[in-house]
Amino acid sequence: MQIKLNDIAARVGGRLQGDGEIIISGATNIEEAGSSQITFAVPPHLEKAAESAAAAVIIPENIEHFPKACIRVANPREAFSILLGLFTPPPEVTPGIHPTAVIGKNVVIGQDAAIMAHVVIADNARIGDHTILYPHTFIGQDTVVGEDCLIHPSVTVRERCRLGDRVIINSGAVIGSDGFGFVTVQGIHKKVPQVGNVVLEDDVEIGANTAVDRATTGSTIVRRGTKVDNLVHIAHNDDIGENCLLVAQTGISGSVKVGKNVTFAGQSGTVGHITIGSNCVFAARSGVIGNVPDNVFYAGFPARPHKEWLRGEASAGKVPDLLKRVKELEQKLAKLEES
Amino acid sequence: MQIKLNDIAARVGGRLQGDGEIIISGATNIEEAGSSQITFAVPPHLEKAAESAAAAVIIPENIEHFPKACIRVANPREAFSILLGLFTPPPEVTPGIHPTAVIGKNVVIGQDAAIMAHVVIADNARIGDHTILYPHTFIGQDTVVGEDCLIHPSVTVRERCRLGDRVIINSGAVIGSDGFGFVTVQGIHKKVPQVGNVVLEDDVEIGANTAVDRATTGSTIVRRGTKVDNLVHIAHNDDIGENCLLVAQTGISGSVKVGKNVTFAGQSGTVGHITIGSNCVFAARSGVIGNVPDNVFYAGFPARPHKEWLRGEASAGKVPDLLKRVKELEQKLAKLEES
Amino acid sequence: MQIKLNDIAARVGGRLQGDGEIIISGATNIEEAGSSQITFAVPPHLEKAAESAAAAVIIPENIEHFPKACIRVANPREAFSILLGLFTPPPEVTPGIHPTAVIGKNVVIGQDAAIMAHVVIADNARIGDHTILYPHTFIGQDTVVGEDCLIHPSVTVRERCRLGDRVIINSGAVIGSDGFGFVTVQGIHKKVPQVGNVVLEDDVEIGANTAVDRATTGSTIVRRGTKVDNLVHIAHNDDIGENCLLVAQTGISGSVKVGKNVTFAGQSGTVGHITIGSNCVFAARSGVIGNVPDNVFYAGFPARPHKEWLRGEASAGKVPDLLKRVKELEQKLAKLEES
Repeated sequence: MQIKLNDIAARVGGRLQGDGEIIISGATNIEEAGSSQITFAVPPHLEKAAESAAAAVIIPENIEHFPKACIRVANPREAFSILLGLFTPPPEVTPGIHPTAVIGKNVVIGQDAAIMAHVVIADNARIGDHTILYPHTFIGQDTVVGEDCLIHPSVTVRERCRLGDRVIINSGAVIGSDGFGFVTVQGIHKKVPQVGNVVLEDDVEIGANTAVDRATTGSTIVRRGTKVDNLVHIAHNDDIGENCLLVAQTGISGSVKVGKNVTFAGQSGTVGHITIGSNCVFAARSGVIGNVPDNVFYAGFPARPHKEWLRGEASAGKVPDLLKRVKELEQKLAKLEES
Repeated sequence: MQIKLNDIAARVGGRLQGDGEIIISGATNIEEAGSSQITFAVPPHLEKAAESAAAAVIIPENIEHFPKACIRVANPREAFSILLGLFTPPPEVTPGIHPTAVIGKNVVIGQDAAIMAHVVIADNARIGDHTILYPHTFIGQDTVVGEDCLIHPSVTVRERCRLGDRVIINSGAVIGSDGFGFVTVQGIHKKVPQVGNVVLEDDVEIGANTAVDRATTGSTIVRRGTKVDNLVHIAHNDDIGENCLLVAQTGISGSVKVGKNVTFAGQSGTVGHITIGSNCVFAARSGVIGNVPDNVFYAGFPARPHKEWLRGEASAGKVPDLLKRVKELEQKLAKLEES
Repeated sequence: MQIKLNDIAARVGGRLQGDGEIIISGATNIEEAGSSQITFAVPPHLEKAAESAAAAVIIPENIEHFPKACIRVANPREAFSILLGLFTPPPEVTPGIHPTAVIGKNVVIGQDAAIMAHVVIADNARIGDHTILYPHTFIGQDTVVGEDCLIHPSVTVRERCRLGDRVIINSGAVIGSDGFGFVTVQGIHKKVPQVGNVVLEDDVEIGANTAVDRATTGSTIVRRGTKVDNLVHIAHNDDIGENCLLVAQTGISGSVKVGKNVTFAGQSGTVGHITIGSNCVFAARSGVIGNVPDNVFYAGFPARPHKEWLRGEASAGKVPDLLKRVKELEQKLAKLEES
């Protein structure tokens, strides 16, 4: 694909500086951008971008001087993101049902949906318009998948789950696996049937090899706009609020309620049966062991206010020095006591 | 499904209070229970259950007064678990081999087994009676799967493994992947063939996207009745005892021997080549770095007795105060020395 | 398979002691070795091996006295590894394309490659000579897989990725899933298209249920000879150097550059956008939060030199004692001040 620079400026709603007739054939990062490509830069990377081979650079609108063709926009990352999709569209997909797909009874498949090779859809499932199911995907009985969803290869969505519109599920993810529930009777762990389901609301994205367990009763819910990274564990009866970010290898124990706009950084975790407020950030490796109010920035295990955690880390480093000082004090005091 | 309350009482072996003719059509949690549903409650949730919309409540037999229709039983969780299975049976499965399944040479498939769409069973494998293989499951050469097993979609069981009866494997789990074994010769990591297998004994359950590596030689074993949650790593040559619980994202390094009735809470881990006793509990995030005797409750990293860990955590919090007090002591002592 | 002991000695380039006519029919560990099997031992296991039922033992060449048939070699582990492969070869694979495999347009499949049941290969992909794709594998559009690769069941390799020769991918692994990249505009997380790819160089091995995300632009790279264990997360734009070892459940955040010969022990992790030198070792659970020079041995979170971490751990244990001593000092000083 080849686009003139002034067409790109129009596409991202930006202000062009330089020759609008330059032909751009790709968008990439500063290091890899060649003389027919566009890149983006925000401070402190502006100089590097200016010196790069790139034909043009997308920069913040408040940067006055830039020694190269550029497009000034309010949000360079967002503009660049638009260009990435423009120059490198996803693999082309032909709508229709592949002859090797196995479709159960009473399945409803929407218009222009693509059901690829070796997909299996069980009885009574519904697939929305324009939804794409890549090969080896399994959709269980009575499950509903919304419109414009993108389900990558080897995804399993078990029975009676509900996926909204524009849901993206990366490969290997499992939606609706059994919750880890047992009644232990005389040392034997007897399985508690997990008869609930999973609800993924609109615009949710689930990462590769992540598992979202079905509820024991009722629903495990991931609310609108929340993005979940790879290898995350979401346990039975969790209710994850809107627009959260769950970074890789995070584990949320069962029956946890999380508010809106909460970020769990990588490898963080929680105990079960707690309530976490909105607009919270948990640093990497945080281990949350109790209820958490709104608007906090926590770190550590047990998770506590980030400043407190920093203080704790700093003072821990002073213990060897303390040991020395206490020994000196003891010696001096002993001398004083003698005299 | 609709059942009279006195039939439910009979089914769970409980003592009925109230109108046995009430028709019950479902079992669910207190919050979601409607006027034709039954729920259960143990202290401190009895009052909430009494005030709920539920038609009836399963309660402990030692609760004398309860202001609503109820069934008294020794173990309300267990009774409720029975009702969950009764009112919401798993998706119906028709025995037989789906025409798209690919079955190797000399494969033996038991009576009333269900081999669903796109399953692949390699040569010489054996599948027991009443076992269900959901779509996209792979069973490797010479592997034996017992009776009444439930293998969810997209499970891989590689060659020469042995699964007992009533084994449940959740989607995406991998049984018999190569152990992580290399001989490093002049900086190059050469693969050590992993020629052993995995044995999952009767009544084992494996969670979604969990991996159990085959042994280098001999067997990696998960013994009878042990339940493994999602995203757990069990390495080559591990021997996990009976009736253990391995909660999500736990990692057991290679050649670890674990006794019976051991619980690893979420995100815990061990080093390799150690022996862990029976009846141990490791709190969430425990990191076990050496042999552990029977009957301990450990926490922290390195894992140590829970009380000791608590003391350590508590005293760590006192370091900032200690710093202040030592400074004061130094000042006072300096004054004393002067005078 | 049955081999005479002197043929085995020749095969591993070792020096035989004992009857070369002994027939050996298997290789296994000391505990399981029977009277027709060979095992290996290095100190301190030599005595145990000598007393075992094994027909013969592979031992280090510098061991002078050994009371049993043995073969002396420079590297017993390496020699034993050769015998494991000899006595227990992997399941036999017949080259060719299974009739249930679905092959796209313009796909090139090399000589003697094995494309097993229900494999899906998308348009324009290329599969090298002698490469084995086990059932339920998906190879995306324009992806290139080299020669002599071994792709286990249920692996997903998405579009435009590049795999070198002799790459091994264990079941459930996902190569080329979307990186976790979003632009947050007024609280809404908008997806940044992940238009880059993944490059796995020659002799890379990837563990079960591991996920390697594709780059936002450019490539996520795992370089020649690096071995990755199960359930590892490698994020977008990572560049992992040659001959590294990433042990189970490790997570490398985005845009991290790792040198050669680096070991991340189990459950370790890093923040994003850092550079790590060569020949480093990170102990289990290390959390790396900044750039790291060559040749270090780090531990803890935040990761720091292992000795420093040990000192910190040791001094932390002394805080309860410190508390006592400071209290005593305060009391004594108070008395002194009074007098």
